Amino acid sequence: MSSMNKLSATIRTFHSSAARFKKNVEFTAVRYPYLKRGNYSFLSDRHLGFFQSILSPHQVLTDEFNDLSGYNVDWMHSVRGSSRLVLRPKTTEEVGAILQYCNAQNIAVCPQGGNTGLVGGSVPVFDEVIMSLGLMDAVISVDELSGIAIVQAGCVLEKLETILHLNNLTLPLDLGAKGSCQIGGNVATNAGGIRLLRYGNLHGSVLGLTAVLANGQIMDCLSTNKKDNTGYDLKQLFIGSEGTLGVVTQVALHCPSKPTSVQVGFFGINSFDNVLETLRLSKQNLGEILSSCELIDASSWNCVTSLLKLKSPVNYFPFYILLETSGSNADHDAEKLNSLLEMLLKNGTIVDGTIAVDSTQATSLWALRERIAEALASEGYVYKYDVSVPIRQFYQLVDVMRARLEKLPIRCCGYGHLGDGNLHLNITSQEYSSELLNKIEPFVYDWVSRQRGSVSAEHGLGLKKRDYIEYTKSPTSVHWMRRMKKLFDPNNILNPYKIFPGTLNE
Amino acid sequence: MSSMNKLSATIRTFHSSAARFKKNVEFTAVRYPYLKRGNYSFLSDRHLGFFQSILSPHQVLTDEFNDLSGYNVDWMHSVRGSSRLVLRPKTTEEVGAILQYCNAQNIAVCPQGGNTGLVGGSVPVFDEVIMSLGLMDAVISVDELSGIAIVQAGCVLEKLETILHLNNLTLPLDLGAKGSCQIGGNVATNAGGIRLLRYGNLHGSVLGLTAVLANGQIMDCLSTNKKDNTGYDLKQLFIGSEGTLGVVTQVALHCPSKPTSVQVGFFGINSFDNVLETLRLSKQNLGEILSSCELIDASSWNCVTSLLKLKSPVNYFPFYILLETSGSNADHDAEKLNSLLEMLLKNGTIVDGTIAVDSTQATSLWALRERIAEALASEGYVYKYDVSVPIRQFYQLVDVMRARLEKLPIRCCGYGHLGDGNLHLNITSQEYSSELLNKIEPFVYDWVSRQRGSVSAEHGLGLKKRDYIEYTKSPTSVHWMRRMKKLFDPNNILNPYKIFPGTLNE
Repeated sequence: MSSMNKLSATIRTFHSSAARFKKNVEFTAVRYPYLKRGNYSFLSDRHLGFFQSILSPHQVLTDEFNDLSGYNVDWMHSVRGSSRLVLRPKTTEEVGAILQYCNAQNIAVCPQGGNTGLVGGSVPVFDEVIMSLGLMDAVISVDELSGIAIVQAGCVLEKLETILHLNNLTLPLDLGAKGSCQIGGNVATNAGGIRLLRYGNLHGSVLGLTAVLANGQIMDCLSTNKKDNTGYDLKQLFIGSEGTLGVVTQVALHCPSKPTSVQVGFFGINSFDNVLETLRLSKQNLGEILSSCELIDASSWNCVTSLLKLKSPVNYFPFYILLETSGSNADHDAEKLNSLLEMLLKNGTIVDGTIAVDSTQATSLWALRERIAEALASEGYVYKYDVSVPIRQFYQLVDVMRARLEKLPIRCCGYGHLGDGNLHLNITSQEYSSELLNKIEPFVYDWVSRQRGSVSAEHGLGLKKRDYIEYTKSPTSVHWMRRMKKLFDPNNILNPYKIFPGTLNE
Repeated sequence: MSSMNKLSATIRTFHSSAARFKKNVEFTAVRYPYLKRGNYSFLSDRHLGFFQSILSPHQVLTDEFNDLSGYNVDWMHSVRGSSRLVLRPKTTEEVGAILQYCNAQNIAVCPQGGNTGLVGGSVPVFDEVIMSLGLMDAVISVDELSGIAIVQAGCVLEKLETILHLNNLTLPLDLGAKGSCQIGGNVATNAGGIRLLRYGNLHGSVLGLTAVLANGQIMDCLSTNKKDNTGYDLKQLFIGSEGTLGVVTQVALHCPSKPTSVQVGFFGINSFDNVLETLRLSKQNLGEILSSCELIDASSWNCVTSLLKLKSPVNYFPFYILLETSGSNADHDAEKLNSLLEMLLKNGTIVDGTIAVDSTQATSLWALRERIAEALASEGYVYKYDVSVPIRQFYQLVDVMRARLEKLPIRCCGYGHLGDGNLHLNITSQEYSSELLNKIEPFVYDWVSRQRGSVSAEHGLGLKKRDYIEYTKSPTSVHWMRRMKKLFDPNNILNPYKIFPGTLNE
């Protein structure tokens, strides 16, 4: 979707401005004073000498102001580490040599992909050595017939997509950050995005991967077999483990055929019951070509239309749905979408609706959904919650929070991946307020927990959400996660302070 | 697909005949004399008394001839255990109490679903206690809108499918054994089948599950969230672990909308190059509605048409492809498939072809593919290999084996899930011959290994293929699998002798 380039550009802008604003970003260690640095080695000249002996000069960055600031700060300027060293390996073997040494020397390591995360998972908390995968950006092979691509972890998603399109294939995932995020980071964080409804999640799409363990051992799970039942599927462990069990260096991905026809519809809807009915009828009538079903509430719509001056094809409604279809026959797809639109209008499920006639219009419609985050950010401080809830309770949380917070915030709004039950609850205020935060948390997590939802649907836990893990995962699960971590990384050198609350020795 | 009922019926027949034939089935311990019983407790009256104290009489089976024989023997009559006890828990808690006791008493346990496996994974090797999940067969909930079903592990796949169809949903997996196999066993063995091409594998479709660990601890991962990134996705460990890490007791499954239109085409093809071209053009032109692409070679076709007297709509060809589409608009789907057929005939990619005009014809076409196994079995002993290979080498293995085996077997044929790169290589002889076996193995595994294929695409390792794990998995992977096993089941009470070669203490 070329429509997404705008958001990608936004993230790039944030990114490049990180250096300029670095002095304004508070150190994580200051903002979160209860965090204690682990008992890791401090970086010495001897350590540096070792890394310089195995890597080329451009693979070892130490200039704090010119080199490191972009790696120490996240793109939202919400967390800031104080690493003094960025290592940029070019091969799996180099990653292995680095980790073997760090493990032996008790040096903590923060693996970093495109650094587009939202939970502070990809930047150091203290002085962890940053391992950036950015130089490992080769697309190793693409096979159109089998629909299989093998790629190095540092490859930017958009670059991979461009190459796949040349081979009549497409990516099974798509997200706003695709201009910056890297496939290895996507796998490590189990990135979701707007195509999950159609192509499923990365646990199904990743055919194989290579990961380097904390001790430097190379785990070769780089299968390209769509079916392989020979023992435990260990690669699954690394998908979504946020760099805490190993560093993903190569990925084999199942890539679907590129759709030749993409259509976008935008509907105005009077009630949430009708939102659900629209979803139900869309699934029934669009069937296999439905590729996105996104909800935008009136408040999000107001924000993006008024603050960013985006034009909307339909006027004010309590809810909007953006539907996307992707298929292999434009006539068939148009017939399906048009007859759905007719049916929805006729039976009163939707009140107004439009279908994009060309890709420019489609891009404009997508902008109404994709630039909401940007519009919200312009209001000041944004409290962002990315939760999964049962579909019938999808919007209830927004109502509950509005009633609870009353006039405290500027705005409390909800939008997101309706088809996947994934709500983005956003609350804005002029600046960060601990009073407001304490009104929101942990209440919001508790509410989600009572619905058996997920307190982090697609953004992961990282640093910012680690304390809320038990609102979604059972104590037994967390216990066994800790045991897995201990098994794979006994010295806890890989991305410490992330995912698990407290210290791992608790 | 009602077409599959025939094979299901076949499996049921095999099943019910197991009791009759039990005296003819050699004990596994005799057929594989190198296997040594682990140092487990022998079942005592005290043990039995405990189980009888926590379960009802019909949940504790001990009558060797009337009760146990069907559980001790697989449906192919290829392995036979000597268990003296079958336990049939009705709840997760009962599974927990049983395992806690077995773990404390050092009693080995063989979990068993529908017992339809092909690798001897679901029956005991020695006298392991059999834990049958068959009484846990409730469909707990089905939600049409979100497409989510929660079901107990012992529910037979066909029963679940029937209930889903009533809710306009369908299963993301389908296999010949669906009349007997159970969803828990499907998950534990990561069952593949004929819809994987369309709906992906169980690692993507299983949203959550409950598993009971060896120590009786209940691991609640029964999420129904389509997106949940809150730490490690532990449920993935149990998918495909063949009951060696825990016993799956409940499953939450993502279920797609039920297609309203299903079409089947059957094509005769002159060369394997044209088989690949047919696949390529089918993917390109049928796109999102392609749901199966199955290959049948001339020898398999001969067998099923001559021995089972099945009629074929096209005459003799070196290769046949069966295509299935599933979609939401019969007119659109028919137009797509018809224009594909026209194109393939016109450009000479296929020489003859037909499209079923009704479901009776579709069932007949599917029978040509699905009853091959039955036809082969009627020739005598069948050496079955279920492998994944890169798509361009898909049929090469059959040619290689024919050249190698010359006149030794009756037949050497290949068929299977072309679209997934999953070949079923079958070799028949009048009776079991170790000379023939030694000509086949380990050569066939070595060949697959050199293509980086999988020596068990969808059937698992169980007992029969455990010694070949390293032909597909790297030594590092196997090492870490052993460590995982040790972590989750330190006493190795869960399904011992399976998956891992040698003993786990090696």
